[in-house]
Amino acid sequence: MSGLKFRTEHQVRGYECDFQGEITIPSLINEMVHVSSMQSEALGNTEESMMMRGLSWIIIQYNIDISRIPERDERIILETEAVSYNRFFTYRIFRALDLEENLLVEVFTTFSIMDLETRKMIRIDKEIVAPYKADEIRTLIRQPKIVSVCEETKSEKPFRVRYLDIDANKHVNNAKYFDWVINTVEMEFLLAHQIKSINIKYEKEVEFGTMISSSISTKEQEDGTILTAHQIINGTTIACVANIIWEKR
Amino acid sequence: MSGLKFRTEHQVRGYECDFQGEITIPSLINEMVHVSSMQSEALGNTEESMMMRGLSWIIIQYNIDISRIPERDERIILETEAVSYNRFFTYRIFRALDLEENLLVEVFTTFSIMDLETRKMIRIDKEIVAPYKADEIRTLIRQPKIVSVCEETKSEKPFRVRYLDIDANKHVNNAKYFDWVINTVEMEFLLAHQIKSINIKYEKEVEFGTMISSSISTKEQEDGTILTAHQIINGTTIACVANIIWEKR
Repeated sequence: MSGLKFRTEHQVRGYECDFQGEITIPSLINEMVHVSSMQSEALGNTEESMMMRGLSWIIIQYNIDISRIPERDERIILETEAVSYNRFFTYRIFRALDLEENLLVEVFTTFSIMDLETRKMIRIDKEIVAPYKADEIRTLIRQPKIVSVCEETKSEKPFRVRYLDIDANKHVNNAKYFDWVINTVEMEFLLAHQIKSINIKYEKEVEFGTMISSSISTKEQEDGTILTAHQIINGTTIACVANIIWEKR
Repeated sequence: MSGLKFRTEHQVRGYECDFQGEITIPSLINEMVHVSSMQSEALGNTEESMMMRGLSWIIIQYNIDISRIPERDERIILETEAVSYNRFFTYRIFRALDLEENLLVEVFTTFSIMDLETRKMIRIDKEIVAPYKADEIRTLIRQPKIVSVCEETKSEKPFRVRYLDIDANKHVNNAKYFDWVINTVEMEFLLAHQIKSINIKYEKEVEFGTMISSSISTKEQEDGTILTAHQIINGTTIACVANIIWEKR
């Protein structure tokens, strides 16, 4: 059960890395999503052709599992696979592998298609997804539930939505939210822990110029890992929720 | 008069582009500087080997001239050339060309070498620069003077230096400053104008966690172009100054 795969090689750049020389989540996700653009282009399904139909792919949720995060200068394989689709969602997996084909990062992604005029989700058009040869399914693929931010213990930081946060798709780049999420975590914690998994869900677009608030609460789990719960709010509207599981370095 | 050249091809990604589908200055500069890292690597002069000597390249000034800014999905050639060096500075040109070798963007860059412990510039070590076969010169190459921000008419925006602003070189990525500079410009102005040239000078590093203030003043010039003067201040210390010349789209 799966559709077409597409892969490319990428050398991790210094500017894509954080203080610790590891590729940042926004950089990795951006480059992964670019691989699906390459696949779409190869199949004649460019973002432009979507735009000309008044449509755009939107990302609803990422589930990221990290075995080992790629490092500066490392050559990696980036792979994408159109898995399946139902009436409202398409499911796609992104993978980062080392050159010996060991799986480093796997990202299960839920997409939908938005009408650019109404900014609403529309039914998946079979004609659009046909080239990817993914399986049509009748069920929704449920993702792990996201634990809410603890209102009592949360801390928050404000962020202004900047002009350069908006990309060629004319809305805030999905990877930007990781920036707002990760930049609420204390430096000392970031240096002592590494990310094991991330579950992030996009609820509502944020617009240029608005001030958003990104909050975080922290909870130690039974297995010794630490869960941070995140919430990005625009006024009173929840724009994005996320959980990150961390383990000690 | 010139040293070794190195070139590579790059396809502009959607995430590297702004609202208008044009590659952003930070994305372009990052990818250009990456090409010089590739050259250094090919010559056995990696950032790591510099770090092991307790040294790091630092960028003092960029002079960017834009004939046409590369667009989303466009394939471009990125070229770098080690031009010359004197006792304290090395000079390097970056170029973006289209596949017919038309020059799109040229960036004249002044580098120096910093001692990572004292955070001070040191004399250029001939052994380090020798592999690039650049000319040794006795003179300083003067760059155009940067017009100061007009204190009476300036407006300013605060920015927090975020964890993800720091890259694998363990300091704020140079391209980040363009973010702070460009994000002070009003949206309406950005949509109606395009950048003709940028002259940016780095005066002093900014550290993680500090709040910096980025100010801008605008002046119409005799030739009809518009000059914006920029200043990034950390407390009372000037961290960075820049001029951008804009023309109507």
